[in-house]
Amino acid sequence: MNASHNRTLRRPRIALAMGDPAGISPELTARLLADREVTSAGQIVVVGDNRVLAEGARVAQVALDIDQVDAQDKIPEVHDRPILLDLGHLNPKDIKVGEISKAGGGFALENFKTALALAVAKKVDVVTFTPFNKAAMRLSHPSYEDEIVFISEMLKFDGIASEFNILPDLWNARVTSHVPLSGVAALITKENILRNLRLTDEAMREAGFAAPRIAVAGLNPHAGDGGNFGREEIDVIEPAVRQAKAAGIVCDGPVPPDTVFVRARKGEFDAVLTMYHDQGQIAMKLVGFDQGVTLLGGFPVPFLTPAHGSAYDIAGKGIANPGASRAALLLAAKMGAKRIVAKSAA
Amino acid sequence: MNASHNRTLRRPRIALAMGDPAGISPELTARLLADREVTSAGQIVVVGDNRVLAEGARVAQVALDIDQVDAQDKIPEVHDRPILLDLGHLNPKDIKVGEISKAGGGFALENFKTALALAVAKKVDVVTFTPFNKAAMRLSHPSYEDEIVFISEMLKFDGIASEFNILPDLWNARVTSHVPLSGVAALITKENILRNLRLTDEAMREAGFAAPRIAVAGLNPHAGDGGNFGREEIDVIEPAVRQAKAAGIVCDGPVPPDTVFVRARKGEFDAVLTMYHDQGQIAMKLVGFDQGVTLLGGFPVPFLTPAHGSAYDIAGKGIANPGASRAALLLAAKMGAKRIVAKSAA
Repeated sequence: MNASHNRTLRRPRIALAMGDPAGISPELTARLLADREVTSAGQIVVVGDNRVLAEGARVAQVALDIDQVDAQDKIPEVHDRPILLDLGHLNPKDIKVGEISKAGGGFALENFKTALALAVAKKVDVVTFTPFNKAAMRLSHPSYEDEIVFISEMLKFDGIASEFNILPDLWNARVTSHVPLSGVAALITKENILRNLRLTDEAMREAGFAAPRIAVAGLNPHAGDGGNFGREEIDVIEPAVRQAKAAGIVCDGPVPPDTVFVRARKGEFDAVLTMYHDQGQIAMKLVGFDQGVTLLGGFPVPFLTPAHGSAYDIAGKGIANPGASRAALLLAAKMGAKRIVAKSAA
Repeated sequence: MNASHNRTLRRPRIALAMGDPAGISPELTARLLADREVTSAGQIVVVGDNRVLAEGARVAQVALDIDQVDAQDKIPEVHDRPILLDLGHLNPKDIKVGEISKAGGGFALENFKTALALAVAKKVDVVTFTPFNKAAMRLSHPSYEDEIVFISEMLKFDGIASEFNILPDLWNARVTSHVPLSGVAALITKENILRNLRLTDEAMREAGFAAPRIAVAGLNPHAGDGGNFGREEIDVIEPAVRQAKAAGIVCDGPVPPDTVFVRARKGEFDAVLTMYHDQGQIAMKLVGFDQGVTLLGGFPVPFLTPAHGSAYDIAGKGIANPGASRAALLLAAKMGAKRIVAKSAA
């Protein structure tokens, strides 16, 4: 991608679904819309309610310069200023700041569904959202499991998606996630590792890495110590890494799990593919992932959101740090732009 | 323990076995012996060779003010200055700095054995050592597995010992260690957790904590999420924590594994008992454990050593950082002193 070429293409269209209204989501949304770097990076369609957004702007003490359409209106194909798609479905007076509620969960869920519909209709290139509160969403929609499952249902997507945790100079992907530790080893197959290596490589190239350097963590202590403490490194991980390398993915491993993040932080790798949830999460949370970005990749469009939660404890106080949300929107714009360039080249 | 009482008691006797002579151990030993805070904290018996130690002093550029006895000599009961127990078994010219050798491994092994014999004969209260090189030790003694196994053999100890990783304000103990990840869950029993909680509590009280606050990590992602991703938290860990609390141990858990170290670092806990090797090691290595201390606890005497290795890459250069060795010696002195007070009170 070069700049002169890029200028001739449209800016990426980004849906921004407002998250839980009892937390910091309204304030964060308002801060994003008042941020010139964010609003110039993409054409943003905020999905929410104008009263909730106005309350967020009041808390954030920012003035908003945006346009607004109703649910039945057509969203302009090209727009300079952000557009609020006002669903008119929640009066902020009907919920209590800092408290879980069915109304709050329903608000976030409806915004998310609408953003997903925009993606299905190809009206947006990327979907982002400010923090949800899963418990509130379950009050409104008891079968709500998590974002990946919900998106898969809404998009009728039967492929495999994966969560990425992203800090400015360190990505983390994982082969297994919400499974009991006793069940992890059985899921460490060559196919699963290869699929996640491909997903990671593709997502990172879209995010701007020319050839991301991916470390593949071992599964066992000291990566099995030559087979003394487990054979998965020898039988599964090493063959998967070899095959991925042959396919042009820049990767290395199995790397001993207890030093792989130390080495990545020193600049040796751009990403770590971990074998299980806590192998990555323990490290990422220690190095400040609460200010990181979560990417749900593998879907027809990327989904990006700040890694932190809805922070009920500081809601309504005007002190929410928009750093992670900002990073999510800017990364969304980058990935969206890359897709537009790829499509125009195809 | 109060100071006035303490003054009437003897200083703890500390064996300091010189580690691998091709690494930074000679330099570290010399630096420790030239450190007034270290030499005044305990009565130190260095076990090694006077030529290797002299070479360490030359590299460290320190002058040593110590006494010396030979293997057949009696070590004085009370001594102000450190004493070198000179085994006369290695001329530093016979090994090459920065290279693994059988002679180097044999030197370290003989020092360690002699320090263990001093412990058996109750000539010392605590044993410390500068870094070994396990590969070199195996060249000299092929069946050498690790320190815990070797000490158990030498002491004819059939109890259960455990490794602790120690930073100034954070201890880490673990229920399982060098086992395949697939075998961890089966070893998470109430008995194993309770035994490790007791060991941790005892060791930390000896190290000066009045009532150490121990976090017990969960096993599964999000500590099982109420049984959704594994039941060990409900069936095993929580009952163990409850029983330990009833026995007077200040502990809390199961704590979600991916935030337990973040919380401990914020001051909420003094120690984390992890369920498996990498659950702790990933965190400890990220927060600087290479400058920490390893304690082998549960034996009749405590064993302490710096957490880092023999650092062949910087051996002989005079740039080794003695911080972790110093911390090991000072903690050894503290634990030894506590034992002397406990014995005198008994």
